[in-house]
Amino acid sequence: MNEVHSSGKLDAQAIAEAVRQGMYAKDHASKGLGMQIEAVGPGYARLTMTVRRDMLNGFAICHGGFITTLADSAFAYACNSYNALTVAAGIVVDFVTSAHEGDRLVAEAREISRSGATGIYDITVTNQHGKTVAVMRGRSHTLKGKHVVDL
Amino acid sequence: MNEVHSSGKLDAQAIAEAVRQGMYAKDHASKGLGMQIEAVGPGYARLTMTVRRDMLNGFAICHGGFITTLADSAFAYACNSYNALTVAAGIVVDFVTSAHEGDRLVAEAREISRSGATGIYDITVTNQHGKTVAVMRGRSHTLKGKHVVDL
Amino acid sequence: MNEVHSSGKLDAQAIAEAVRQGMYAKDHASKGLGMQIEAVGPGYARLTMTVRRDMLNGFAICHGGFITTLADSAFAYACNSYNALTVAAGIVVDFVTSAHEGDRLVAEAREISRSGATGIYDITVTNQHGKTVAVMRGRSHTLKGKHVVDL
Amino acid sequence: MNEVHSSGKLDAQAIAEAVRQGMYAKDHASKGLGMQIEAVGPGYARLTMTVRRDMLNGFAICHGGFITTLADSAFAYACNSYNALTVAAGIVVDFVTSAHEGDRLVAEAREISRSGATGIYDITVTNQHGKTVAVMRGRSHTLKGKHVVDL
Repeated sequence: MNEVHSSGKLDAQAIAEAVRQGMYAKDHASKGLGMQIEAVGPGYARLTMTVRRDMLNGFAICHGGFITTLADSAFAYACNSYNALTVAAGIVVDFVTSAHEGDRLVAEAREISRSGATGIYDITVTNQHGKTVAVMRGRSHTLKGKHVVDL
Repeated sequence: MNEVHSSGKLDAQAIAEAVRQGMYAKDHASKGLGMQIEAVGPGYARLTMTVRRDMLNGFAICHGGFITTLADSAFAYACNSYNALTVAAGIVVDFVTSAHEGDRLVAEAREISRSGATGIYDITVTNQHGKTVAVMRGRSHTLKGKHVVDL
Repeated sequence: MNEVHSSGKLDAQAIAEAVRQGMYAKDHASKGLGMQIEAVGPGYARLTMTVRRDMLNGFAICHGGFITTLADSAFAYACNSYNALTVAAGIVVDFVTSAHEGDRLVAEAREISRSGATGIYDITVTNQHGKTVAVMRGRSHTLKGKHVVDL
Repeated sequence: MNEVHSSGKLDAQAIAEAVRQGMYAKDHASKGLGMQIEAVGPGYARLTMTVRRDMLNGFAICHGGFITTLADSAFAYACNSYNALTVAAGIVVDFVTSAHEGDRLVAEAREISRSGATGIYDITVTNQHGKTVAVMRGRSHTLKGKHVVDL
């Protein structure tokens, strides 16, 4: 999976997958919440998470923080997919529909723009019925000269 | 703690504390992350959380989602403090400094404005050295005619 | 243009165009900045504006406020397109590239979700070279029982 | 006003005022909207603007874009007050109360944090009755090695 292909397009995909592997190996947070990294690509990531009982707030719905955490993980895998170490500078979340125990959420992160050290990403969280649960916009900041994994 | 005092000021404080008790009893999410509700008041809440190993991301720093979850809980206790059922409509988070395993974070939520069904809250997350970790702004939406707890 | 057609699809389009006419007639702000409403539809609007000298800030680039004003007008025409009186509750803008005097900016607003009184819209501002200048996300609030125009 | 005093505190104030003068001289946008820079200081600015007829939208209230432009100008004068060239990376605005023709708005910008090239600012817009019209949070980005004015 990590081999580097001759075409530029395949290289970028191989790099994104190598980064995914390297990040996930140490990503206690995403693992602990049962997230799975379904797909990655250059500037792209799709993750899933099932809402557990310990994610419910005092109103018996999924705590917005956990929905955000899923979206933020998708954002992290997408914005690090070029193997340049990148952190979240800021995020904006609009909550659209409640999520409930047992719901299977999918977060899809897509790059909107990238220039200099700054990237803008859109992340959509939907439930198993395809309904939008939340939308997030993330601003990323790439650190100079640091890689996520050694290739 | 739940008794209603004669002064309007004390009443509001007693209501906020009754709401805190009622919410926290069922708040699996905040409890599961080890959050403690240190103080509440009308439009106000202060919560603490210690960064655990299972909150670290692939870069060995606290996942931004957990910092947001702490801030979002503080927001929830503050905006529900009047005992009118209120949910987060949207949040904006700016990450200022990384948090590390063992850091004791404090989130303080304060009301900026409230008119009609909409409230605006500012939440600041600081670490044990008093350094700002993140700032969040939350927009709340109050549902009509629903209480958090029966008083 | 305002006649109501038999098909539901055409009706919605005709309503959007009637709202556009009614709003624009009194919209001193958008007119004064030279904005033109190029297209509207249900949940959609596309506006243009040319950056003038009196829109430049102290650094000789277009003041971010005017870029935001263009995006906010596109947002307004899109979220009012159903002829239910709707106002902006909040906006988030990320500035991607500077705009300069004489640049012809295009703002395109698209609906992301709408449920109850709340809508979420994405607005993209691009220049004459197709480069993204700014992205905005808007949260709208629809007032009960009020129309924009009498049909 | 521009002379540099011996105390560090006074120096910072003198620098902020020199920057204000230098920026305002070329700030066609803020001048054209009738904004006045009432006060500046390190990380601080207070501006006023009176809502004119040509700032009204199709609903006869002040277009949110002009409220944002005022807040954004206050943000610009505050984040450039150290004489290091700084631009807005992103802004978040929550609209609280409508503004009407003739209202005298005051925007006050205060620094929340500053580290590396990034600053976070809070801007509050109030009307002549002291009522909050809008709150804005701005993220600034300082360019390396560039000054606003030559001192």
